[in-house]
Amino acid sequence: MSKIPYKIFLTEDEMPKNWYNLRADMKNKPAPLLNPATLKPMTAEDLAPVFCEDLIKQELDDTTAYFPIPQEIFDFYKMFRPSPLIRAYCLEKKLGTPAKIYYKFEGNNTSGSHKLNSAIAQAYYAKKQGLKGVTTETGAGQWGTALSMACSYFDLDCKVYMVKVSYEQKPFRREVMRTYGANVTPSPSETTNIGKAILKEHPGTTGSLGCAISEAVEVATSTPGYRYVLGSVLNQVLLHQSIIGLETEAALKKYDIKPDIIIGCAGGGSNLGGLIAPFARDKIQGKADYKIIAVEPASCPSLTRGVYAYDFCDTGKVCPLAKMYTLGSGYIPAPNHAGGLRYHGMSSTLSQLYDDKIIEAVSVKQTDVFAAAEQFARVEGILPAPESSHAIKVAIDEALKCKETGEEKTIVFGLTGTGYFDMVAYEKFHNGEMTDYIPTDEELKESFSSLPKV
Amino acid sequence: MSKIPYKIFLTEDEMPKNWYNLRADMKNKPAPLLNPATLKPMTAEDLAPVFCEDLIKQELDDTTAYFPIPQEIFDFYKMFRPSPLIRAYCLEKKLGTPAKIYYKFEGNNTSGSHKLNSAIAQAYYAKKQGLKGVTTETGAGQWGTALSMACSYFDLDCKVYMVKVSYEQKPFRREVMRTYGANVTPSPSETTNIGKAILKEHPGTTGSLGCAISEAVEVATSTPGYRYVLGSVLNQVLLHQSIIGLETEAALKKYDIKPDIIIGCAGGGSNLGGLIAPFARDKIQGKADYKIIAVEPASCPSLTRGVYAYDFCDTGKVCPLAKMYTLGSGYIPAPNHAGGLRYHGMSSTLSQLYDDKIIEAVSVKQTDVFAAAEQFARVEGILPAPESSHAIKVAIDEALKCKETGEEKTIVFGLTGTGYFDMVAYEKFHNGEMTDYIPTDEELKESFSSLPKV
Repeated sequence: MSKIPYKIFLTEDEMPKNWYNLRADMKNKPAPLLNPATLKPMTAEDLAPVFCEDLIKQELDDTTAYFPIPQEIFDFYKMFRPSPLIRAYCLEKKLGTPAKIYYKFEGNNTSGSHKLNSAIAQAYYAKKQGLKGVTTETGAGQWGTALSMACSYFDLDCKVYMVKVSYEQKPFRREVMRTYGANVTPSPSETTNIGKAILKEHPGTTGSLGCAISEAVEVATSTPGYRYVLGSVLNQVLLHQSIIGLETEAALKKYDIKPDIIIGCAGGGSNLGGLIAPFARDKIQGKADYKIIAVEPASCPSLTRGVYAYDFCDTGKVCPLAKMYTLGSGYIPAPNHAGGLRYHGMSSTLSQLYDDKIIEAVSVKQTDVFAAAEQFARVEGILPAPESSHAIKVAIDEALKCKETGEEKTIVFGLTGTGYFDMVAYEKFHNGEMTDYIPTDEELKESFSSLPKV
Repeated sequence: MSKIPYKIFLTEDEMPKNWYNLRADMKNKPAPLLNPATLKPMTAEDLAPVFCEDLIKQELDDTTAYFPIPQEIFDFYKMFRPSPLIRAYCLEKKLGTPAKIYYKFEGNNTSGSHKLNSAIAQAYYAKKQGLKGVTTETGAGQWGTALSMACSYFDLDCKVYMVKVSYEQKPFRREVMRTYGANVTPSPSETTNIGKAILKEHPGTTGSLGCAISEAVEVATSTPGYRYVLGSVLNQVLLHQSIIGLETEAALKKYDIKPDIIIGCAGGGSNLGGLIAPFARDKIQGKADYKIIAVEPASCPSLTRGVYAYDFCDTGKVCPLAKMYTLGSGYIPAPNHAGGLRYHGMSSTLSQLYDDKIIEAVSVKQTDVFAAAEQFARVEGILPAPESSHAIKVAIDEALKCKETGEEKTIVFGLTGTGYFDMVAYEKFHNGEMTDYIPTDEELKESFSSLPKV
């Protein structure tokens, strides 16, 4: 076996040719989406006004294990993939740990994160269906940027509803999207009925993700030739993101590396679900016994402190019901919370895996996360996004446990993106102005009361 | 020959083990630096109070062709190098050109540019000499960021004097540097005699690169255990940056690709000098006849409209005299000019190559540059820095010439970095508020009058 390089790159020939649909191999399938009006499982017909045809097929299919990646998408992937699996030699040395740490780095593209993996797929299927354009919402802006890039590539119109406070506080993100030709509107806006109603009721509101979703869905369903697309939570998104896990698996096999622990940050689940897909399969099939850890923020602890129940996917309650670990669709993380991972629930697939104890979860405080981010940046060079840094924090914790026990465990974590547009949060951290927030049991109990009766 | 992939990566084993010093193979050597007091060539002793010992040796050596890359630097390089040589398949298709376009992309590291190649080398030699720290200046912030990362890696103190207007307008850059532990001071400041004097004379000044250099040099020479480091112009910097050209050469040879045209943007010359080093050697030795193009902004056209003469390297006139194509050390680009490439002169090596007609030069207007940047971003994904986009503009021009003539030329250009911190300029471009500036002959004549009498 040759020496393991700092960065393991697959060749184009070694890149996965299929996405992997973990649901096909799950013994307990994730519960179906329910139509909020009938409480019956959503059908393809129910979903057709909102989503693209091929994406609906992927969404509802829990038996087909492999979906071929269309050549057009594969060609786009080749522009920024395969992403490197990097051996964190410098971090290991700094920690003085016998553990071997690897990270799959998804930040080497202009959107700055893994979101592009699904954005390009969704844009492709929209184009294939002959649509004019797509609508979406974005909060921190990673998804909106990725979708703008993807739509630009396929010459599709892209309407992004950006939470107003982000639109104003993150003008750079907005301009990146405009560079790719996207139409970016601060939400709530006067362009939709729901936006007008919200503005009338709350004139000074700075918006919310739930409101932006509602506006994007309204435009998609009321404009001929448009559909709505979403960057996380959905099964189709996890399917596309499986490219992360499949490449990681191939890179590890190339050098005969056997991981012990796999760690990913978890907001809606797009990164974690993609990263762990082939490893969770092996674990379900009894072929390996990986420790798989979902890391979530202590301020938005859906897996570690939520309940497993049907809930609305959006705060506006216009979307289908999903069974998931949730804090209640009315839960809003404290304003001191930086970056993404703010979603009140968790993808149905990951929720089921957690309930089945295939994966475990921990929550971490954001000041600890930023300290880990800074420690990582100083030795590994890469400036991580706050979201990604949740995984870094737990990877370091696990490596330090190995230091105590002397175990030479192999740790793999997902580094989902870069933090170039999150320097306001880093500044707060440097200035000692960053604080932590942990919801009380009473607050969560109150939030759970908004759960629908199903 | 196997199909050429989108991204050509060298393996670690294929990475260059030496830097290449083009001066060793130049028939007409670049003119030496002169001591401004005596007008005699600067000696190692003259330079010792300002620069690190090993770097002075590299600076003054115009006969040694290859310098081994120390293992510690090579290990750091492995974290972000080799950088990919990317085939711009999508851009070619969009342009409908028979030309084959490749670009060497140096932006996949947190500093966002090629500057890290030299920063890590300079930090290494400072550490090797037992210094406590280094000082430098930064304008747009790429060099300061790169140096911060490098110093963090070697546990060196890093004092950055950042032009005040950038310090205030680019708080994100500042925070990235702080993340890496650098001490960032807006210049002019009260921390130096020269800063105090300037503030007294011009209380409201927003600073200049020349002033920041003077402050950084003052601190380096008056603080025990400190030296000054610089990110461009100097021979040592071009030496370290030769890694770009050597990797490009190796990647092209790996797939038996023979370039016809090589294009790089040129400010002080750090990128261009590094990119073209092995190709200029072949041309000097009569082994190949590449067309090598330096691209500079029309607002700061040192090669295309400057004079070849001894001039001060800094506006403060504290540094040695260098013979170079220059607009005069008092020349300041118009305030509407975005990004880097604002230096009044050009590295001595590149100036000599230009005078010897080994390289040629063109100047381009910034609105054309941003249009090219946006066109590139939309098809190739990467959001380019304004500096890098000068090369993109001319690469597109050359590819369109091929479209007219039907020639299948192979074009290679350097994409030095990403534009994430330049979105204010992109915003101006999107809003139609960007303007061009071209100095008049009278303005340049006036500026040339500041040239020293040597």
